[in-house]
Amino acid sequence: MKIFILSVLLLSLTTLINGGITSKYVRQAQPANEMSLETFPSPAGHNAPEQVHLTQGDRDGRGMIISWVTPLNLAGSDVVTYWIADNGSDNGSHVKRRKKKASTSSYKFYDYSSGFLHHATIKNLEYDTKYLYEVGTGQSVRQFSFTTPPKVGPDVPYTFGIIGDLGQTYASNETLYHYMSNPKGQTILFPGDLAYQDNHPNHDQRKWDTWGRFMEPCAAYQPIIYAAGNHEIDFVPNIGERHAFRPYIRRYHNAFKTSGSISPLWYSVRRGPAHIIVLSSYSGYGKYTPQYVWLEQELKNVNREETPWLIVMVHSPWYNSVNYHYMEGESMRVMFESWFVNSKVDLVLAGHVHAYERSERVSNIKYNITNGLSTPVKDPNAPIYITIGDGGNIEGIANSFTDPQPSYSAYRESSFGHALLEIKNKTHAQYTWHRNQDNEPIAADSLMMYNRYFFPKEEIASDCFIC
Amino acid sequence: MKIFILSVLLLSLTTLINGGITSKYVRQAQPANEMSLETFPSPAGHNAPEQVHLTQGDRDGRGMIISWVTPLNLAGSDVVTYWIADNGSDNGSHVKRRKKKASTSSYKFYDYSSGFLHHATIKNLEYDTKYLYEVGTGQSVRQFSFTTPPKVGPDVPYTFGIIGDLGQTYASNETLYHYMSNPKGQTILFPGDLAYQDNHPNHDQRKWDTWGRFMEPCAAYQPIIYAAGNHEIDFVPNIGERHAFRPYIRRYHNAFKTSGSISPLWYSVRRGPAHIIVLSSYSGYGKYTPQYVWLEQELKNVNREETPWLIVMVHSPWYNSVNYHYMEGESMRVMFESWFVNSKVDLVLAGHVHAYERSERVSNIKYNITNGLSTPVKDPNAPIYITIGDGGNIEGIANSFTDPQPSYSAYRESSFGHALLEIKNKTHAQYTWHRNQDNEPIAADSLMMYNRYFFPKEEIASDCFIC
Repeated sequence: MKIFILSVLLLSLTTLINGGITSKYVRQAQPANEMSLETFPSPAGHNAPEQVHLTQGDRDGRGMIISWVTPLNLAGSDVVTYWIADNGSDNGSHVKRRKKKASTSSYKFYDYSSGFLHHATIKNLEYDTKYLYEVGTGQSVRQFSFTTPPKVGPDVPYTFGIIGDLGQTYASNETLYHYMSNPKGQTILFPGDLAYQDNHPNHDQRKWDTWGRFMEPCAAYQPIIYAAGNHEIDFVPNIGERHAFRPYIRRYHNAFKTSGSISPLWYSVRRGPAHIIVLSSYSGYGKYTPQYVWLEQELKNVNREETPWLIVMVHSPWYNSVNYHYMEGESMRVMFESWFVNSKVDLVLAGHVHAYERSERVSNIKYNITNGLSTPVKDPNAPIYITIGDGGNIEGIANSFTDPQPSYSAYRESSFGHALLEIKNKTHAQYTWHRNQDNEPIAADSLMMYNRYFFPKEEIASDCFIC
Repeated sequence: MKIFILSVLLLSLTTLINGGITSKYVRQAQPANEMSLETFPSPAGHNAPEQVHLTQGDRDGRGMIISWVTPLNLAGSDVVTYWIADNGSDNGSHVKRRKKKASTSSYKFYDYSSGFLHHATIKNLEYDTKYLYEVGTGQSVRQFSFTTPPKVGPDVPYTFGIIGDLGQTYASNETLYHYMSNPKGQTILFPGDLAYQDNHPNHDQRKWDTWGRFMEPCAAYQPIIYAAGNHEIDFVPNIGERHAFRPYIRRYHNAFKTSGSISPLWYSVRRGPAHIIVLSSYSGYGKYTPQYVWLEQELKNVNREETPWLIVMVHSPWYNSVNYHYMEGESMRVMFESWFVNSKVDLVLAGHVHAYERSERVSNIKYNITNGLSTPVKDPNAPIYITIGDGGNIEGIANSFTDPQPSYSAYRESSFGHALLEIKNKTHAQYTWHRNQDNEPIAADSLMMYNRYFFPKEEIASDCFIC
């Protein structure tokens, strides 16, 4: 371990001399093997609820959408019971229990018929409070819990996990349990590509079910904020499936209407000290489109005095120097980058590319079609761009980089992993990226981020490799 | 007139010295005044059909979609009768009459309720043949006619009119009747922005009706191939109208399914010697989106041996040097320009900007995010880009240019007008642009275009100002 830490420190030294780091740590490029359908059977019990997952259910964190699936649509299958956890005992027998009925639907996709998908939005929860909840009936009741965030405010510490392009391979499993082994993460930011069902014949929808089961040990206990990736599109006209994003939208609800959006593919939530904007790489974003109109207004709605940390999620990265999906995000960058800089966005999270990369704070907004000024330049008002499509999905690692490493690229590595963003207060947030092969306390990439609104100083890659 | 022609010739001379022309002919910038609702009352007669319009109803020109509106949905209101015109007599009493039932719907929009919108697709027509058709019942029958195109083939002469951003002002009226005064035009290519109903409170949908009546003298007699513009979006969430393009799609059907598309906002038709691809600036066009997937396949479907002329229509221009909507098309250019060059597209038609501009054959596809090569360069494989949003709508003329005129801009002028593309054979097409103030035979801008597939030579702006 000591030798490894030393080598990382040497790499860090290289940065100071040469600019960006291309980590020499390269995972083998073989595709990650997917866990079989049988790895994730339905839970035992008659009509037992499964694939339980959470996401924020309102604008500010007092709401939660609780989602689950049952094979049958029986009386009571669509009801969640929830109550404040009684410190210590957890049976909550003397606290008020509430019930909420879900909206329920099912869908067909080619030769597949889904179970019954239940989504219950519970609101007006207490801030910063542990809740227990139960779904299921009779002998098949299952109990889970979650903790609400503190009230939205500038100096509220809060820690987000960041996982992208996860899939359901043995590597995915490593990533998820690596993340869960650290109790710090309170909510996951997930910039798209969930189950990779579309890598199987006819977009085998059973893989949506197994992914839901795989994720439950995490997703039933803390909310995940998703952006939609290309693997959520499920557009297969040759088998009659002509409605983009249909299974994803059925299975993963969110509270888009509370942010004035008309589509679950773009929306925002405020959680603790952060304002999180989710965009869709695969919807219209041209001027006048609903997403464009919404984002223009949404950026005006951000109040940095209340939520100093402004984070954007989008699936296709704008600054990517890996030789996969190179410049696929360019069309959206051209559209919105100047807005992000003008709004002093702190951080942009993307997935799509199956490697890890962190950018410098750069912008590329001076260009017009004849002036040739199309090279990214350092810009203290610009976000840091993180590409974190390294969850470990079936397509394997992306292990070929553009050469030389462009100046906008601060750190890049072909490994699977996840990141943590520990927001400390309105000025500082400790960001760390953890590759799967290391013990959890080790960060392969680490940066103390400074808030662009309250403390817009230049960050220096930290030597805090064991935080 | 002689003096005027002389001045145009002088301008032409300027080109040879300086490159692109910025015409000194500038129409006054006052907004064009809209014709009142009362200008276009419903036609006389009980439940008389109105707003009759045509578009191609199949892939290759043997089909026609006949559309009309009736105030009531009475028996027979939804039927069109059609027959081959009897040369000379036109009553067709001894030719076989056929009937086709339309699909009928109506819609509500805020406080407006539409009439009954009928769309009948008739197929298997004879090529190059005049047809008569009737809609309406009892005393309110109305008769119109159209001529089908010749069979798709490389050396079939055919003339397209080109009109964009028309609206319904007195200037629009000039443009439309100017076009109609020349019998050459056989089909109109219309790159978006039709009625400008959205410039009125609550997107006054009655303006869709008056526009339909205004257009009927032309639109009932020859097909119009539309691309959707921003004024077709009708997205007004604050009055509860949350479905983009709903009225447009209800009123203007097309045969998108026959080109394998899933949306009426992007599709193609083949007509005579031309393959016409219609794209949507206001839908998703990122990689993996339905439009992207469709266009990628569609370009492979083009057979230049059958249809040598490959024309694309899109609303928002990619090469525009007017100070209005400057670079709004950039995000889509970034996505698709290399495909157009690789496919040797002959001509790209756009609207949106209320002026006229013709580009050189240029491309800007060498750029990557770090090499700085972002300047358009001459490219014999590139299309000519025409911006022709100069139909004459209520928003008035765009009369301010970027300065100096960029090298990609061959000719630009702030005048209302229309263009003609007279395809002569598989190598030559005479293109002319006609400003409203001139007599029809005068072309303010003129170019003999050479086909990119069969005769990819450099064109030289013609001095054929009276063609």
